[in-house]
Amino acid sequence: MSAPRFAGVDWGTSSFRAWLFDDDGRVLNEVRAADGLLAVGERRFADVLETHLARLGADARTPAVMCGMVGSRTGWVEADYLDAPVALGEIGRLAIRVEDAARPVHILPGIAQRDAVEPDVMRGEETQLLGVVAEGYRTGLVCMPGTHSKWVRLDEGAVAGFSTFMTGELFALLRSRSILAKAVESDDAVDAAGDAFRGAVRRALDAPALLTGRLFSVRAGWLLHGRELGEGLAVLSGLLIGLELAGAAERGGSLDGCVLLADGAARALYTSALAVAGASGVRVMDADSCVRHGLVSAARTLFPKGDQRP
Amino acid sequence: MSAPRFAGVDWGTSSFRAWLFDDDGRVLNEVRAADGLLAVGERRFADVLETHLARLGADARTPAVMCGMVGSRTGWVEADYLDAPVALGEIGRLAIRVEDAARPVHILPGIAQRDAVEPDVMRGEETQLLGVVAEGYRTGLVCMPGTHSKWVRLDEGAVAGFSTFMTGELFALLRSRSILAKAVESDDAVDAAGDAFRGAVRRALDAPALLTGRLFSVRAGWLLHGRELGEGLAVLSGLLIGLELAGAAERGGSLDGCVLLADGAARALYTSALAVAGASGVRVMDADSCVRHGLVSAARTLFPKGDQRP
Repeated sequence: MSAPRFAGVDWGTSSFRAWLFDDDGRVLNEVRAADGLLAVGERRFADVLETHLARLGADARTPAVMCGMVGSRTGWVEADYLDAPVALGEIGRLAIRVEDAARPVHILPGIAQRDAVEPDVMRGEETQLLGVVAEGYRTGLVCMPGTHSKWVRLDEGAVAGFSTFMTGELFALLRSRSILAKAVESDDAVDAAGDAFRGAVRRALDAPALLTGRLFSVRAGWLLHGRELGEGLAVLSGLLIGLELAGAAERGGSLDGCVLLADGAARALYTSALAVAGASGVRVMDADSCVRHGLVSAARTLFPKGDQRP
Repeated sequence: MSAPRFAGVDWGTSSFRAWLFDDDGRVLNEVRAADGLLAVGERRFADVLETHLARLGADARTPAVMCGMVGSRTGWVEADYLDAPVALGEIGRLAIRVEDAARPVHILPGIAQRDAVEPDVMRGEETQLLGVVAEGYRTGLVCMPGTHSKWVRLDEGAVAGFSTFMTGELFALLRSRSILAKAVESDDAVDAAGDAFRGAVRRALDAPALLTGRLFSVRAGWLLHGRELGEGLAVLSGLLIGLELAGAAERGGSLDGCVLLADGAARALYTSALAVAGASGVRVMDADSCVRHGLVSAARTLFPKGDQRP
């Protein structure tokens, strides 16, 4: 095994992921844990980090670069937002150093769009985007599904602008805490290729204004007709993803040729929804691998080769 | 005081309202309580009803007509939905009699739209609509704001069709349980005439597809710019009401000349939002008085004059 050179950490609200990299950016070891910000009691960030890095086999001087909500106001240390438009190559250079860490630890900044009417922020996604750029996709539209989905316009390796849609959070709220809860009960995953999902995407694209009416129809359909298991959930998912695509098209024009940065269930659902929307030439990339590439790219700026112990 | 003739009850999920009427439909007495369905333990509907009617001064033989969720599957006795299109004059005739009541008690049916793609239901609103018809408005569009707002197309005293929008429920969920919670914190009521509310209505009408993006902007604006107290809440309210108006226009065409059936805060907000949408000739009616008129109208069918003790 080659020598560990630096660690990369994606530390979010509900999850912690870390990788140990060698000098060439190859993964030597990884850890995934539920130690997100919400689980870190009394803000013992240094202890949690050291425990995981020890498990990875990082010695006490291996530096770490981190991204995600760990750099938010409610995280370890706040790393200010950079203002869009911004070249993604800048985020490594403008990382902040954490003073009360047991080793060199740097947190990457998020990106803000300080528009007066439609302001927006991202934190964590900028590092995935740096990975997208590192893989050679430097100009175009990137779709990043999630609790707060991002649609990002890249221009020659810079974030030109972006929009966040609360798709995932609304899905979770409506599924568990609204009058729709019983009508969308299901243990099965949504069938991305099914008529229920695809039809709902189509209806949301055709008439976005009817969203909250169509949501209530899910309840009414359950009351009046009974619905097959899982159909209500598929309709809920399709309506919200369809609305997001309609919004992305409203903001960003054509969805043709966009990059879809998603793993797991989201990848299948968004691929299917983009097909319903008629988007051609969609390129799917792996979100997990992009965040690793982004961390490595930022680490190269922070810890240049030859500078063995920054 | 003239002799009590019948009682009318609007019994919903979270509230109980009852009136005692004389032979001419004049209100002799009223009671409002928090004894909604959720508060009625062990389904002791008969006891709760008798306690309130005794307080109103109704003797043991005074009949009662009821509307609202008390007639739902989770209520006292389920009163089946009538299918739209349906003449509102029918709802009194098709009320169901409650068998285990201590006096003659009838529950009015709701109305269902058994459309295969966009099914819909109402329960309680049909009685308010009967009141609207009783006041002489027999054809046109009626807007009924609420947790689940209804937009109803009346045609010669019949419900021709309707759409429900989850505006109020989404507002409550997003206000208290979403990432927007801190950004919309406010003890003040939303200023219906303010720029924040009216601007948000305008933006939702102009681009309904951007709803969930604009919701997230409320959060981002709070993070980046700080916002004046109450502004976030006004924007949230304006975006959701604006989306509802856009949906109503998509379904029902022009909003000109519609009836707005609302009390309190909703009346001011929807009046302002309808003005932003350019609706002319809006007629405001009192929701509280319409439900009373509807109950009286249904009671006249159920308990004809001369038939003193049905």
